[in-house]
This record gives sequence, C-alpha cells and structure tokens, in this order.
Amino acid sequence: MNAEELFRNIQRKKSFLCVGLDTDYKKVPRMLLDEEYPIFEFNKHIIDATQDLVIAYKPNLAFYESMGAAGFMSLEMTITYLREHYPDLFIIADAKRGDIGNTSRMYATAYFKTLDCDAITLSPYMGYDSIAPFLEVEDRWAVLLALTSNEGSKDFQQLGLKGDQQLYERVITTSAGWGTVNNIMYVVGATKASALQHIRKLVPEHFLLVPGVGSQGGNLYDVAEFGMNDRCGLIVSAGRSILYADGTNKFDQAAREQAAALQKQMEITLKNRDLI
Amino acid sequence: MNAEELFRNIQRKKSFLCVGLDTDYKKVPRMLLDEEYPIFEFNKHIIDATQDLVIAYKPNLAFYESMGAAGFMSLEMTITYLREHYPDLFIIADAKRGDIGNTSRMYATAYFKTLDCDAITLSPYMGYDSIAPFLEVEDRWAVLLALTSNEGSKDFQQLGLKGDQQLYERVITTSAGWGTVNNIMYVVGATKASALQHIRKLVPEHFLLVPGVGSQGGNLYDVAEFGMNDRCGLIVSAGRSILYADGTNKFDQAAREQAAALQKQMEITLKNRDLI
Repeated sequence: MNAEELFRNIQRKKSFLCVGLDTDYKKVPRMLLDEEYPIFEFNKHIIDATQDLVIAYKPNLAFYESMGAAGFMSLEMTITYLREHYPDLFIIADAKRGDIGNTSRMYATAYFKTLDCDAITLSPYMGYDSIAPFLEVEDRWAVLLALTSNEGSKDFQQLGLKGDQQLYERVITTSAGWGTVNNIMYVVGATKASALQHIRKLVPEHFLLVPGVGSQGGNLYDVAEFGMNDRCGLIVSAGRSILYADGTNKFDQAAREQAAALQKQMEITLKNRDLI
Repeated sequence: MNAEELFRNIQRKKSFLCVGLDTDYKKVPRMLLDEEYPIFEFNKHIIDATQDLVIAYKPNLAFYESMGAAGFMSLEMTITYLREHYPDLFIIADAKRGDIGNTSRMYATAYFKTLDCDAITLSPYMGYDSIAPFLEVEDRWAVLLALTSNEGSKDFQQLGLKGDQQLYERVITTSAGWGTVNNIMYVVGATKASALQHIRKLVPEHFLLVPGVGSQGGNLYDVAEFGMNDRCGLIVSAGRSILYADGTNKFDQAAREQAAALQKQMEITLKNRDLI
C-alpha cells in the first residue's frame, strides 16, 4: 500500500484511526480465558467490532512476546485473520527494532514475509544500514521513531547538536533521504502537538504515526491542526482506551463506542480541511 | 548473576567468550532439517560442543522471529536447555528493544520471566523510562547500545552535541547513573577498538559487550588491550564464524575448534593482565 492508497482508505472510512493491539492477558475478559488462544480471540472480537471505523491495526510485539511462543502464535493468527477478512487494513508491527544489516534483514523477513505486515516501527539509533533492509521490500514501510510521547524523550531525542538541530530533527532530515514518502513514516507522540507543527515543516509530505491519543493524554484536535497535510498525512493510534473500555463480556461493544467517538472527531477534522 | 560472579566465571573458564546464536535456518546442516525443531537441534549441538569454552550465549531474536511462532518455540527450548544443563552460563537476549514504560515492562516480562534470560540488549533512543523497567528486576542486566560496529553508527551515534560530547558518549555518561555496574553494560563494536580505550575511561567499572570479533573483522588482542579492566570487564561475542565454520555434519566439532582458538587467545590476554 502506498501513500495515495492510504489516503484513499482514509477518505473512504472518514477515519485515520489505528487501534493499537496492546493485548494484555491480564485484561482479557474471563469469558475468553478458556479458549486455546485467548489473546487471539480477544483481538478477533476487537477487530470485528471496530474494523469499519479504522484504517489500521498496530499489534505491540512486547505483549505477544511476554507470552512466549503461544503469544507469537496469537500474533500470527491475528494477522492472518486480518488479511483474510479485511485485506484493505494496514498492519503496523509495533516492534521498535533496529540492528546491523544482516540482522535487520532477518527482522524484515520476520515482519514483511513471515508475518505479512505492511509496516514496522524502528529505532534509528544504529543508522542507515539498520533501516535500509526494510526499505528494500516493495510496498512496505519503515516507521522511524522521531519524537516520542514519553518523559524519556528529553534524555537523547531532544539533545541539541552542534549547529541548530536537536537529535530528533536530525533523525528526520537525514533519514527522509533514505527512502520516499511511500516507504518512510515517523513516530511523533500526540503529547507533543506543538512539535508536530515543526515536524510537518521538516517533512511536509510524509505520513506521521501518532500514538498517545487516549490513555497517554494527547488531544486529537491539536494533532489534526498541527499535523495534517493535504493527504491527511496522519495515522493516529489509540490502544488501551479502546481495548479496555469495559472489562465485561461487552468489551467489544464498548471498544466500538470508543473507536466511533474518535472516528467522529476525525471525520470533522477531515471535513474542516476539505479532505472528504 | 552480578559482576563479581561474572568475573569468577571468566576466571574459572579462562574465557570471556560469548557465542552469538544467530541461527539461520538456511545454514542448518541437512541432517537436522528433518527434526521438528531444527533451529533448537542446531543450537543444542553448538551448546554441547562449546559450553566449557564460553561464559555466555547470545541468541539473536531476529533469527527466531523470522521463523514465526515455531522459531520462538526453538528459542524457548534453547533457553530451557541451557538453564537445565549449564546453569552457570549467562544468557543475553540480543533483542535491541526499547519502548515507552508500560511496553518496556512487558519486554522485561518476556525476556526476564517468560524466557529467563540474564540480560537483554536495548536501544537507548527513548531514554530513561524505556530502560528503567529492565533495571527493576533483580539480578538481571540491561545492555545498552553505545557505539556499534556498523557503518551507520556514524549517522547518529557519533554526532557531536553542543558542548564536547558525541551522542554515544552522552548515552553512556547519562545512563550509567540509571543503574549500577551490576545491572548495566554497554555494547561497543569490536571494530571500534580505539574508541574502547576512550569508553573505558568513561565507565571504568562497567562490563562491555563487544560483538564483531570474527565475521565482522574485529581483533581480539586490540579489544583486550583497550577494553579490559581489573575484573576483565569484557564479554566478547562471535557468531557466524563459530556457528558456520563447517556446513557438514561435523559443524559442531568445527564450531568447537573456532571457539577453542578464541578461548586460547583470551586465556593469554587474561594471563598477561594477571587476572588468572
């Protein structure tokens, strides 16, 4: 899927919402715990309940790895289920990987071939050759960490370099040359809405993946005001606020209501910009 | 295992060698391909053939993830095998993880509880709260990327900051305060032997994990000269040069010979420093 196709999906769905599948075994409702793969069953319910309101799902690898091989199996089943039933949805492996070239090539195999995701989040610390193997796979995306929503983003990302840039700015301006607007995105935390305006100037055409709306406190209208471009250019992700809106066996209905509320706000911002 | 116990193992084994278990299905000898878990079987042979010559094993997660859930199962079996048969060996999950706090907490669960590793490699880009959850688990280690052996280390790690430091130096001096010499190590590529001398001054007491001896061209004597401290302070890793020394059914014997050659060199360097 390229940037134009992503934008067309956004127009059709009137949404740029991504649901973060941070599926925590401890929060799966009891009714599902007897299933052989409760994590997968939970995801299936969430997906069926929200798929018409969203453009993407973003499984967070840590949650699957914490369950070992069985967790990884639930992840495989989730992706297979998405591909079979909702093939237009964009799948982002939230993995924050990045290693020397031959290892990154293995990660590219893992997430673009074995698991058939559209995109993977990556840490830029190791530089070009740690990212390049992901850019060599056609129609797949590298989503680079730029400026994240957590407190620790101050420790290194916002350090001033010799000259005028902060590290995260250099990450963006350097890496933008490694690929195109059709295979590189950046992670920018929703709690950094004012910085979005600045980042939008650095990369006017790139898609930005913006987590942190919902549980982490980011404001959707701010994100849209500062981050939107003329192809939307935003994928906004919410996880816990949707997945765990309700702990009973009505969790999927509650998840749908949360997703629908965000979709409605997104529809308004898209209309305000004459994008739909 | 704390730093003192690591050093005692180094003295006892006369070795600071770590074998990187970068096990590539395509390079597993044919005789093992009919097994249900050929990756595990390969690892088992390598471990049995080398365990008395080394102090640590370092499975590289990318290689297991590239095989999906079955690969993850081979990883689990490898770690269980190590724990059952050779409990004094140090296990490093070469994972290069790092995410916001609640996600890093899940990775800590994955690698310190579900998988029972002693240590995990981490990318520092997201700062303190992405590392802290790993430091909260007793007797386990966070191994932070500092200066890596690949070409791309120039892109960001070696950028000059305002003031006098390069980014990798700041990563080291800042993060050293987050934990102790008993739960933080740093990754420094063996191809950067001269930088090792400088890093040794920044963190005189910390253990350094040094990959890149062997296939990547680093020289062991240089590494020892510039990186050793009075508790050795080095874990030197070799992967492909040991695992794939021979593609026939004598691969384990060939792996042993490669490991033994490195162990012999290490014994000499330890004697030269009066550490054994």
